[in-house]
Amino acid sequence: MLALLLEVSGTPKPGNVDREREYEDLRFEHFLAGAVGALDGFELACTGAPVGQAFERAVAGMSHQRGGNTQFGAILLVTPLVAAAARGDCTPEGAQQVVAETTVDDAVYFYRAFDHVDVSVDDPPDGMETLDVRRGSEAESAIRERGLMLADVMERSADGDSIAAEWVTGFPRTFESAQALELSDGAITHRTSALFLALLAREVDTFVVTQHDTATALEVRDRARAVLEGEEDPYELAEELVQRDINPGTTADLVAGALFVALEDGLEV
Amino acid sequence: MLALLLEVSGTPKPGNVDREREYEDLRFEHFLAGAVGALDGFELACTGAPVGQAFERAVAGMSHQRGGNTQFGAILLVTPLVAAAARGDCTPEGAQQVVAETTVDDAVYFYRAFDHVDVSVDDPPDGMETLDVRRGSEAESAIRERGLMLADVMERSADGDSIAAEWVTGFPRTFESAQALELSDGAITHRTSALFLALLAREVDTFVVTQHDTATALEVRDRARAVLEGEEDPYELAEELVQRDINPGTTADLVAGALFVALEDGLEV
Repeated sequence: MLALLLEVSGTPKPGNVDREREYEDLRFEHFLAGAVGALDGFELACTGAPVGQAFERAVAGMSHQRGGNTQFGAILLVTPLVAAAARGDCTPEGAQQVVAETTVDDAVYFYRAFDHVDVSVDDPPDGMETLDVRRGSEAESAIRERGLMLADVMERSADGDSIAAEWVTGFPRTFESAQALELSDGAITHRTSALFLALLAREVDTFVVTQHDTATALEVRDRARAVLEGEEDPYELAEELVQRDINPGTTADLVAGALFVALEDGLEV
Repeated sequence: MLALLLEVSGTPKPGNVDREREYEDLRFEHFLAGAVGALDGFELACTGAPVGQAFERAVAGMSHQRGGNTQFGAILLVTPLVAAAARGDCTPEGAQQVVAETTVDDAVYFYRAFDHVDVSVDDPPDGMETLDVRRGSEAESAIRERGLMLADVMERSADGDSIAAEWVTGFPRTFESAQALELSDGAITHRTSALFLALLAREVDTFVVTQHDTATALEVRDRARAVLEGEEDPYELAEELVQRDINPGTTADLVAGALFVALEDGLEV
């Protein structure tokens, strides 16, 4: 949970809610309450409960505040890492093992989590309407008929969602980013802000693609590069993205995941 | 724990760490980590464990960050309220009952909490050196010889410490402030900032008296009044107090206590 709290406190974090920038209806305190609410689910993951069940519990807890969907993606990324850490193996292999063990029940729990909160997602491909995640628990029979495990569900989303891609490829960006955090110096909130910008400059944010379009996501990536090259001011970019309602949420989720791993590795606050 | 998180996120909060103002060695993230660390102790209080033991555990957890003493006073205020809430009676009477039931063991645990962290306190009166809280667990035999219960320890400190005064008078300022929070409108962090200023304007902050002197505490109170009367800018006062290292920490603790009660009463974030 500290990972989620530290993530939202990093500043500046162009386009996202941080300590100094918030939206009228989505404020800093909603993220605090969301992180605290998720705790029950993370504790469930620590006890060895199925990762889908822990995820659904965490999302349900997160949703008990008035800001709406604050940390769905971050919780999705962190839950298998918590489960791996509880087994004493918070490594790419340990996390991959957790993913490999997911079942059809986990997939059903995953869908159920969408009952608690509105998540911005793309329409499903033709013929896949019964598996639209927005159906939530109503998709249960379609999932069971096809015998989809949670790992399969992630596989199907990996192209358009960086968090799902992390799930099915051994969380490479998460662990790399954790290492970058551990090797950096200074105040944690500045280190996470630097990581956020570096990630944003490297790949397009899939949430921005879903929320807006690819052109916007490419623009954001290029502007983040300009910030890194000293050609743009990060605070001005932050203000502008908030004005235009462009929120690179997936990049923030990756930072939260990296923070969790780094804290597990002994990163001191 | 959410109460502690929301407290530190209120802004502006003249003289204290908030989302927009921090000290070189005492930063916002230290408060986040302190609040998360305190959780184990609060959970212990929920199970009906002795309130002194829960307090010591919370302080030990809080101290696992590099900012030093972040929330000692807030934890001292909130722990008996958590215990009262766990009994379904988070009222002045319920909290008074918790205090009345404290034992000599609770007093020993309270002293032990000072082993974990440096707390700014006054020198004890002549003849009371063996009961100096800074002796921590070494004071155990002196406490046991005198048969001091935790409520007695608070009684002795009530004159110079508003948190101890809350303990022995049924938490009047805490519950009043909770009601003020519940009746106010708008974003939580603005409501807590307004409460902070109102409390600061009403009585001297005992932490400022201890850390500096009575004249400084009176000046802070009067300047807070000037802010309320529109004669001073709260942001400028906040910057000045941070510059002068004047931190009205007891007032912040009272806000945390009020937040806990208000959240228990159903305050929505």
